[in-house]
Amino acid sequence: MIQVGVNGYGTIGKRVADAVAAQPDMELVGVAKTRPNFEAETAVRKAYPLYAAVPERVDRFAEEGLELAGEVDELVAAADVIVDCTPSGIGAENASLYEDHDTPTIFQGGEDADVAEVSFNARANYADAVGADSARVVSCNTTGLSRILAPLEEEWGVEKARVTLVRRGGDPGQTDRGPIDDILPDPVTIPSHHGPDVNTIFPDLDIDTLGMKVPATLMHTHSVNVTLESEADAEDVLDRFADETRLFLIPPGADIDGSGKLKEFAHDTGRPRGDLWENCIWAESVTVEGRDLYLFQAIHQESDVVPENVDAIRALSGDADAAESRRTTEDAMGVGIDY
Amino acid sequence: MIQVGVNGYGTIGKRVADAVAAQPDMELVGVAKTRPNFEAETAVRKAYPLYAAVPERVDRFAEEGLELAGEVDELVAAADVIVDCTPSGIGAENASLYEDHDTPTIFQGGEDADVAEVSFNARANYADAVGADSARVVSCNTTGLSRILAPLEEEWGVEKARVTLVRRGGDPGQTDRGPIDDILPDPVTIPSHHGPDVNTIFPDLDIDTLGMKVPATLMHTHSVNVTLESEADAEDVLDRFADETRLFLIPPGADIDGSGKLKEFAHDTGRPRGDLWENCIWAESVTVEGRDLYLFQAIHQESDVVPENVDAIRALSGDADAAESRRTTEDAMGVGIDY
Repeated sequence: MIQVGVNGYGTIGKRVADAVAAQPDMELVGVAKTRPNFEAETAVRKAYPLYAAVPERVDRFAEEGLELAGEVDELVAAADVIVDCTPSGIGAENASLYEDHDTPTIFQGGEDADVAEVSFNARANYADAVGADSARVVSCNTTGLSRILAPLEEEWGVEKARVTLVRRGGDPGQTDRGPIDDILPDPVTIPSHHGPDVNTIFPDLDIDTLGMKVPATLMHTHSVNVTLESEADAEDVLDRFADETRLFLIPPGADIDGSGKLKEFAHDTGRPRGDLWENCIWAESVTVEGRDLYLFQAIHQESDVVPENVDAIRALSGDADAAESRRTTEDAMGVGIDY
Repeated sequence: MIQVGVNGYGTIGKRVADAVAAQPDMELVGVAKTRPNFEAETAVRKAYPLYAAVPERVDRFAEEGLELAGEVDELVAAADVIVDCTPSGIGAENASLYEDHDTPTIFQGGEDADVAEVSFNARANYADAVGADSARVVSCNTTGLSRILAPLEEEWGVEKARVTLVRRGGDPGQTDRGPIDDILPDPVTIPSHHGPDVNTIFPDLDIDTLGMKVPATLMHTHSVNVTLESEADAEDVLDRFADETRLFLIPPGADIDGSGKLKEFAHDTGRPRGDLWENCIWAESVTVEGRDLYLFQAIHQESDVVPENVDAIRALSGDADAAESRRTTEDAMGVGIDY
């Protein structure tokens, strides 16, 4: 059993902890948290050993009646692999702690690419991370793009990709975020960071990305154009995508017009927290004009990277069978929507 | 003096009426309105002769204390040119009324293209409408695209255009519109109607468009890609755009990040109703990768077609000098932002 520690128990960390706890070949040795808030409370309810991420704040946990298993360096020492799910930039600050303990580490996509030996997507470049000391699971948006670009590249070749990412302004719980009633080019300069980030997974891919920010919280939505190297028709692309477990093709009859109904569907089917680990692609939108493929997809920023983190744990642990890892992850979590 | 009547005194009609009233070579003979609401009240305050658009509702105007100059057919009879600014679909229903009086007519972009002899954009195809019996001023979004495509086509040639239109869900006054907290592919099928609509102005242009709808009311925002036929650099494009009065290049130092600040700037400069008749292009966003041009532009859905309507009036009246018409329109209205 791979002993896994999760440092940072917020939006991503709590989901990674649950996913790890569900794996047949992993054991969650504990989670570390800076503050004794409602998330710390639920970690204790789940009987996850709780560690203080900041030694100076140990007392605050006691004040809130939350029992600690120890401090974060003990968690790092006890783990075979540590998953850093702290906020952007903090991961890099934590890197020396993990190095001091020689604990292989997974960082999140909010960190710069050079924080880790390799940037990681389970579908596109699993092999690059096998046995590495550290890997960075790319961001939700880059993960969503990598999952469609990998099969397109393999089947038809990608001459050029052009993507407009219409991003949610903040997560539902991020009540200090905006905009309200506006559409912001974000960044106003082109390309956005997403294109270069995709290049950490596909170094030779020609991709230009444009980012915008709107008053929505539930999911990102991508307007995707991929100029293929060879001709395809929409049915071929849909057939190819149907083979990919982490792509959900929204059927035309489902009456799902946006993120709201997608999340409602996820809740109705009993998904934990209403999570959508899969890219949600509107099948009706998949269109080919000449060699230009177009589609719309929604990406659940809070959860799509979670199965990728689980696969990254196996890769760092030396498990070289990517397809088997993905299948194990998906079976344990319930990833894949058969509609 | 060209005698102009405006049928429909809502979002577009009231703005067209003001713009017509400001022209040195036009006289506003009156405006027709279906209901005696606050807009009818302001027409009377401006001393615009007010006509009842629906004969059965004449009494309701009297009940609200609003004096009528007559009924809509009298307005049509008195006008040299009528501008139909009624809601989408109603224009087509009104067409026989205008034909009965042999009154040249301008329709709005909400109508199907076949409502009129020609679809119209003052920058791109003014000459096509000279002396025609009817013209359709294309929609706000198509107008915004035509204004940038015309100079690009002339200077470098357009191999292909790909545009994602992130549309405001409704105007600020349309309190029954959505979405709230969502990003909707709209339509989910590709292309959206905008591409074919651009082809009513540029019949041979290769263009694919994708539409989305978000919780914003102030302006649409376009993510534009144009593959040029010959090489250009961003500075060349900016220089070329700077010659176009109806393009506002937002300077990097202006600190204008979205529609909210654009509208605030418009109000600060004393624009009537805070209108932005110009395409608002973020200069920083104008980027060329190879022959691929990218940019972000915001389009004020309530007002960008107004100068186009004024020019269309002159074209239908037989005035063949497009450049002179545009200049007269702009001088009278104050179109053009010198920052």
